[in-house]
Amino acid sequence: MVDSKTGVSPPSTPGKVWLVGAGPGAPDLLTLRAARLLGEADVVLHDALVHPEVLALAVNAELIPVGKRCGAHSTAQRFINKRLVDAAREHRVVVRLKGGDPMLFGRAQEEIDALAEAGIPFEVVPGVTAALAASAELGVSLTRRGVARTVTFVTPRIGDEETASDWVKAAVSADTAALYMGAGQAEALARTLIENGLPASTPVVVVRDASLPSSITRAGVLRDLPMLCATQDDGTPSPAVILLGETLAAAVVKDAAPAQWIEPEPLRRAAV
Amino acid sequence: MVDSKTGVSPPSTPGKVWLVGAGPGAPDLLTLRAARLLGEADVVLHDALVHPEVLALAVNAELIPVGKRCGAHSTAQRFINKRLVDAAREHRVVVRLKGGDPMLFGRAQEEIDALAEAGIPFEVVPGVTAALAASAELGVSLTRRGVARTVTFVTPRIGDEETASDWVKAAVSADTAALYMGAGQAEALARTLIENGLPASTPVVVVRDASLPSSITRAGVLRDLPMLCATQDDGTPSPAVILLGETLAAAVVKDAAPAQWIEPEPLRRAAV
Repeated sequence: MVDSKTGVSPPSTPGKVWLVGAGPGAPDLLTLRAARLLGEADVVLHDALVHPEVLALAVNAELIPVGKRCGAHSTAQRFINKRLVDAAREHRVVVRLKGGDPMLFGRAQEEIDALAEAGIPFEVVPGVTAALAASAELGVSLTRRGVARTVTFVTPRIGDEETASDWVKAAVSADTAALYMGAGQAEALARTLIENGLPASTPVVVVRDASLPSSITRAGVLRDLPMLCATQDDGTPSPAVILLGETLAAAVVKDAAPAQWIEPEPLRRAAV
Repeated sequence: MVDSKTGVSPPSTPGKVWLVGAGPGAPDLLTLRAARLLGEADVVLHDALVHPEVLALAVNAELIPVGKRCGAHSTAQRFINKRLVDAAREHRVVVRLKGGDPMLFGRAQEEIDALAEAGIPFEVVPGVTAALAASAELGVSLTRRGVARTVTFVTPRIGDEETASDWVKAAVSADTAALYMGAGQAEALARTLIENGLPASTPVVVVRDASLPSSITRAGVLRDLPMLCATQDDGTPSPAVILLGETLAAAVVKDAAPAQWIEPEPLRRAAV
């Protein structure tokens, strides 16, 4: 249905949008389906942190970075929604490539709602989420028979009484908690969790850049969270996942000197 | 280090075990890394529900099904652990292929502990977990700005007072809950959740065979969970994920006749 002269679909037959999970970072943790769709894409709107090797799979596509900058998030999201709808009116195969999995902290629903409202067909391709990549890298499971049968994924929000969601209760109630986007507010986060009943001695592991060669892991206990989350330099901190709970004791015990930088490979092989 | 005569590694240099997530079901939701490792594998020990097209990628490997039957789970798990260690003593590349992600309800830790104890090197390859595939199929996100910032993954356990894990509290405290392996005890599950404070009108969606052509989705509210989980025939029920919470209202609203079978494709396109 693409006009052979202009290469543009008429407004009456919009293209299809694929909201695709790019996985945790390593290019080969992309799904086969995501790789195929990138190869077929006419245009790819991608998050800031997608690996260049993943973007290189989109051989025929126009690449449009839509990574959000700090601040003014809702404006930026509305802008992304509009670009997505516009792209579908001009192209046949539109890929919206999001870090991790689109349906977990990806603000996919806002994009889905915008597409639905505009009458644009869409499909979602799930991906590997960062906490599972972090757990894999540690070699420590988030669940464990007799120890952990619940895992809560949370984006903590400190100092906001407005939010209807009682994220603290959910984080504290679970056997294991995976906190996304919390490392930048580690001190308030640790204090809030301890005040709400989590023991200060709860094992915790902070994994930055899970699945990438630049990955860095620090293990300790909750009271040391600010130290574990501290970055080594003044550069932009890479995304971190905080894993909390008794199952993580396996990682903490392996770490002879708490709060030290640990490379994942020696950690994984420590028991060998 | 493989003996060219017998093809068997000497016990002093065991092979390496890769605990690999096979994803939710659809063969193309496998990661690129998992696909590559299957191609390199000498032996693959796999769960019962791995797709034949995924196993077909293991072109040079001996395939060993180690799917657990009902009952006697701990004996079976010990048996799997032993087979895994034995395989690593006889082969160079051993893949342990598990449904979904290995570190979420996959009992990976028991296998990791057995490998570590036997001095076998291992690595974990994360995968797409069923709840994220179910969410993708529905086109409804598990998180939503202003509605849901916590998602709890749970394997419910009804009628067992022994378990230290208060899974009910974790499930009830989260904005969104994803219940694995709960459909077989739907009546007790719904009753327990409602008794512990979850409104009977909480939106719920049951997805069987997420990501597969055989996928079936039923949407309704928590009080109707037993009806939503009921299977159509007397055959072995396929694995189901139960998604609970206000974000799922989008799926419930789309479903004009609650508790009916809904194919995912029309549901996804309902808004178009």
